[in-house]
Amino acid sequence: MDLETYLKKTAAEVNDLLRDLYGDPATELSKAANHLLFAGGKRLRPALFKLAADSVRPGSSSTLMSEGLSLEVTHNFTLIHDDIMDKDEYRRGQKTVHTIWGEPAAILAGDVLYARAFSLICKADAPDAPKVKATAMLAHTCEEICEGQQQDMSFEKREDVSREEYLGMVKKKTGILYGAAAVIGALLAGGEEKEIEALYQYGCNIGIAFQIQDDLIDLLAPSSRSGKDQASDIREGKQTLIAIQARNQGIDLKPYRRSLSSDEIAGLISLLTSKGVIGAVQKEADDMIDAAIKGLCILSESEEKRMLSDLAWYFVRREY
Amino acid sequence: MDLETYLKKTAAEVNDLLRDLYGDPATELSKAANHLLFAGGKRLRPALFKLAADSVRPGSSSTLMSEGLSLEVTHNFTLIHDDIMDKDEYRRGQKTVHTIWGEPAAILAGDVLYARAFSLICKADAPDAPKVKATAMLAHTCEEICEGQQQDMSFEKREDVSREEYLGMVKKKTGILYGAAAVIGALLAGGEEKEIEALYQYGCNIGIAFQIQDDLIDLLAPSSRSGKDQASDIREGKQTLIAIQARNQGIDLKPYRRSLSSDEIAGLISLLTSKGVIGAVQKEADDMIDAAIKGLCILSESEEKRMLSDLAWYFVRREY
Repeated sequence: MDLETYLKKTAAEVNDLLRDLYGDPATELSKAANHLLFAGGKRLRPALFKLAADSVRPGSSSTLMSEGLSLEVTHNFTLIHDDIMDKDEYRRGQKTVHTIWGEPAAILAGDVLYARAFSLICKADAPDAPKVKATAMLAHTCEEICEGQQQDMSFEKREDVSREEYLGMVKKKTGILYGAAAVIGALLAGGEEKEIEALYQYGCNIGIAFQIQDDLIDLLAPSSRSGKDQASDIREGKQTLIAIQARNQGIDLKPYRRSLSSDEIAGLISLLTSKGVIGAVQKEADDMIDAAIKGLCILSESEEKRMLSDLAWYFVRREY
Repeated sequence: MDLETYLKKTAAEVNDLLRDLYGDPATELSKAANHLLFAGGKRLRPALFKLAADSVRPGSSSTLMSEGLSLEVTHNFTLIHDDIMDKDEYRRGQKTVHTIWGEPAAILAGDVLYARAFSLICKADAPDAPKVKATAMLAHTCEEICEGQQQDMSFEKREDVSREEYLGMVKKKTGILYGAAAVIGALLAGGEEKEIEALYQYGCNIGIAFQIQDDLIDLLAPSSRSGKDQASDIREGKQTLIAIQARNQGIDLKPYRRSLSSDEIAGLISLLTSKGVIGAVQKEADDMIDAAIKGLCILSESEEKRMLSDLAWYFVRREY
């Protein structure tokens, strides 16, 4: 199966399961908790969970799928809370939870999904020992995501964020949940220690690369393709790897912290390309992917291992 | 040992353990997460956890104490988020987390404690099977607490909340976490199914009675004794059991939704007492305690069983 077909199939499975589990909300709070979860999304974390489980024990994911949801549910809990903090009005083309239900209910809706993520792990059709390890991993991951989000917010007030600080923050905010998806899949499927460790490093690395690619898309993709505001990071003065590399090349991005015309954006892209900034950032992402895939060499050959490799490249080749 | 000494001893143990585990925060977010946790509190949930564990297997709590913290940490996570929703500025005599660090960091601080609560269960020195059950219980409990808080907020907009609705809300918002404290203690100590069930009902009942007593204290205790604003529930038009019973007796509390003098509060207390409202509410709480203690008859006789009985009465005899 090619990766695209696999991702589509997994997303459909995820959507079906979500409907089975939560499709009949008994309370208004349940409705609020479901809102973003039912609004689509690429469902990449459950896909990674499945591939990791099947790469260490072929066919194991078929009985573990509802646990793969745990990662998707965790992701959505963090998005609901992040949207409150960032005062974002739209996500996935829909109004955010706090915009519809208000901040108090949105805090609670995120908290409900947080609880559901742990409930889903406990229901796994797997032995108790890996379930406890998976629970511990998820709890640790959630704490790290919070630290990452806090760092991200604190970076907004600074001009001197280093490459290392940025990569550390992105590992926590985005990387570690992909790492956890791979680890929890492999744990519940009964993987060996060295497989689990390799999959963790793989997941963290592709997660970091995913975020770097997101930063590139923000600058390079026209709104018509990405569905997002082009160059919003530059306008808001966000300390992305692009901004950090630009600073290192002596390019001052402060004058661009304002509404920008298409021509101005095109001019800036030209400048950053000619100075090697874009290329250097793309290379960082590609290097992460290379390292991620190399680490998988200890896994037995399988269709899933091949798709893990394809998934890694997809993370930095996607255009939106 | 008498209950008072036991509670003091447990609170000191809890405070020591909290210092050991979290006393050296590495980040500003960790500091924010610690703030309320280190600001004192009666530590009643860890005390109940210990008594439940020791009542089913004498001496078991000595190796399980850090898991008892899980309940205290959960309680503090809910308080941090509730304080944001209720816009409260002070708790335990200190400024609330969002007042000091702002709402975004306070949402994250609550989320950090949420994660720690699950981490603590996973670390239990107990077999994996009861740990998985304890994790599932905690996750279910957290979801119910959110539903209870949402109901509590929605009741503020209503005048027709019934006794049953109020008790259902309080069971979720307050009762179930005491139920979970007792259940998780008994589970990790290796209790039998019927002991666990009895302790769950006991915990929920004393938790509901605790809240009813809180409502009584709010009205009856002068600020000098309770440290809180006297009659604030009446002033805010909260739908407590007192307000519901008063309505059932044909007493209109709406005219009291304003700043009240000590004389006016004293007059209202007289009126509510003479009409039997206070007595009826006290009886509800006492009946809960009676039922809670009766349910414990299946436990073997022990000092802990006797203290569980004392704890139940303490919940409705305390004056602040």
